[in-house]
Amino acid sequence: MRIGGKPYRTIWVGDDGWTAVVIDQTRLPFEFTLRELRTLEQAAEAITTMVVRGAPLIGVTAAYGVALAMHADSSDAALLQAVETLGRTRPTAVNLHWALARMKSVLAAVPAAERVACACQEAQLIADEDVECCAAIGRHGLAILRGIADQRDGEPLRVLTHCNAGWLATVDWGTALAPVYAAHEAGIPLHVYVDETRPRNQGASLTAFELGAHGVPHTVIVDNAGGHLMQHGLVDLCIVGSDRTTARGDVANKIGTYLKALAARDNGIPFYVALPFSTIDWSLTDGVAGIPIEERSQREVTHLTGRAADGTLTEVQVTAPGSPAANPAFDVTPARLVTGLITERGVAPASTAGLAALYPERSRSP
Amino acid sequence: MRIGGKPYRTIWVGDDGWTAVVIDQTRLPFEFTLRELRTLEQAAEAITTMVVRGAPLIGVTAAYGVALAMHADSSDAALLQAVETLGRTRPTAVNLHWALARMKSVLAAVPAAERVACACQEAQLIADEDVECCAAIGRHGLAILRGIADQRDGEPLRVLTHCNAGWLATVDWGTALAPVYAAHEAGIPLHVYVDETRPRNQGASLTAFELGAHGVPHTVIVDNAGGHLMQHGLVDLCIVGSDRTTARGDVANKIGTYLKALAARDNGIPFYVALPFSTIDWSLTDGVAGIPIEERSQREVTHLTGRAADGTLTEVQVTAPGSPAANPAFDVTPARLVTGLITERGVAPASTAGLAALYPERSRSP
Repeated sequence: MRIGGKPYRTIWVGDDGWTAVVIDQTRLPFEFTLRELRTLEQAAEAITTMVVRGAPLIGVTAAYGVALAMHADSSDAALLQAVETLGRTRPTAVNLHWALARMKSVLAAVPAAERVACACQEAQLIADEDVECCAAIGRHGLAILRGIADQRDGEPLRVLTHCNAGWLATVDWGTALAPVYAAHEAGIPLHVYVDETRPRNQGASLTAFELGAHGVPHTVIVDNAGGHLMQHGLVDLCIVGSDRTTARGDVANKIGTYLKALAARDNGIPFYVALPFSTIDWSLTDGVAGIPIEERSQREVTHLTGRAADGTLTEVQVTAPGSPAANPAFDVTPARLVTGLITERGVAPASTAGLAALYPERSRSP
Repeated sequence: MRIGGKPYRTIWVGDDGWTAVVIDQTRLPFEFTLRELRTLEQAAEAITTMVVRGAPLIGVTAAYGVALAMHADSSDAALLQAVETLGRTRPTAVNLHWALARMKSVLAAVPAAERVACACQEAQLIADEDVECCAAIGRHGLAILRGIADQRDGEPLRVLTHCNAGWLATVDWGTALAPVYAAHEAGIPLHVYVDETRPRNQGASLTAFELGAHGVPHTVIVDNAGGHLMQHGLVDLCIVGSDRTTARGDVANKIGTYLKALAARDNGIPFYVALPFSTIDWSLTDGVAGIPIEERSQREVTHLTGRAADGTLTEVQVTAPGSPAANPAFDVTPARLVTGLITERGVAPASTAGLAALYPERSRSP
């Protein structure tokens, strides 16, 4: 993807050959700032404070975090500690644990002396695979968008998305937005309704920023507005990402996703979820009962940072002083509300059979 | 209701006997400021800029606005112009038109020389009737809350509300919050989940402020969170207000209400709407097709005012620069999603028959 004409990934290895460089997503859309991660602790903190976020990117950053830990100390004990520290950063996204398990498995099998090189290589491989996954999701999703666009008589296809599942949530391309970018590049006219996605406003800040940078027409709406738009026939389909998908197709995604899925169902609008295989948790079926939902700081609800008239990033309080807040970061959309899952292997119904057909090798494992 | 121990209504006549005094709700929750309205134009501007808001209070303010107009010029032409000017201020709340029609009808029947006194008296009567309506809504709603609370074994009754339908939205007591205050006074333990209600945050600012001032336990949540809470059994019932209710019980209320009604239905949670008769539009049946939805300024979405660290009210931009926004202010919840309508005459099913049984004299008129 491009920022000011220059191609970017969201994470890469710096000129020194080992530092991980990321875009500080807490400063977007007003400032484009890079952050260098040189230690395990810096990688963990970047995930916890959401300098990087988005399930796929969290996984890749964790992989690089293990590599940074190996750079300091490539012992077995250091490997175990790195996996443990990074595993505690965020509870909901399962890609994190998938990436850490992979790094641990690969590195445990090589001598300590080879682990730095091996860890860098494996993290790079995970990043490259993520890019290929997202590109494949884009191709499969494009077929769906094209099919619906063909019924619009040349009028723009109207897509609603929630939060940011674009290239900023992955290494490149994105999950939910990969089909949108593919359709835009294929010349299909489209218009994206962007839920602002309180409390952290990743829609209004990150998704709107991405779409704007790529010239994709879009409109920011408050999270409350999507149901009204759907009732009035202004949305042709919804696409969102996933932080964890159960074996039967229940989907944990940013808080509020479930409400949009309900509105889509009530108005007969297709509701798709785009995800790489690494977000599937084969150990769970019932997402509402089984997926741990991160409870984040009250302050994300009571305070908000934006750009003041003088250009400075300023935090303001927006709730009544003294009123407490609750801040669950994700909710679960049951499979029954999901029209289809768009994965790197193709599109499946959101069901045990649907996912098993796409991933026969995984669904058979215990 | 009380602020700092002192009883307040939201609108009253000043010491001079004719100026209307209101609480500036755009400064809440951080500043408690009074505004004096002395002209028709000031009354209209107070409604348009949401210094006063809430369907019942808009109606009462419009009535006082007519009285202010009569104070300057009590001619037939001035009366017509006042009704026309005030009728254009907000499109969705029907109380506005109800109050203006009543003022016009009463004043047209008296000589111009008597109109100032008559207008003041009628506006005062409308305000007093609103208070009595809300108190009656509180009594009828209390029975519902008590019934559900009785099944909670002494644990707090958990109520979710959207936007502000409290005493700040009316002259006193509120609509949706009247039963909450009645239950609180009756010693029923309860806890209110307050949707922040973007874009103008009337939940986080006004409802949280009200509940805090009255000592009602509450928690502010983002608008995205209600579905998750309901999925996890944390909400016992929802109560919201209404800006316009059709003859069959479709309800226009603040944008996002429809999404909460869908979540309540999906989780088997009662969803009540509290409203005085003045919000019923007997001329409409299909609310989605018939109720005009106000489209407000993009800036309410792209910018937000809160209290900065230095204590000043500061406006910050929260969306990506250059990204446009859409801002529909209300949505319509179809009657099929509403468990019951709580009115000053009692509780009715949200249906043509239900409303007709409560208001036989109105439902028979053309």
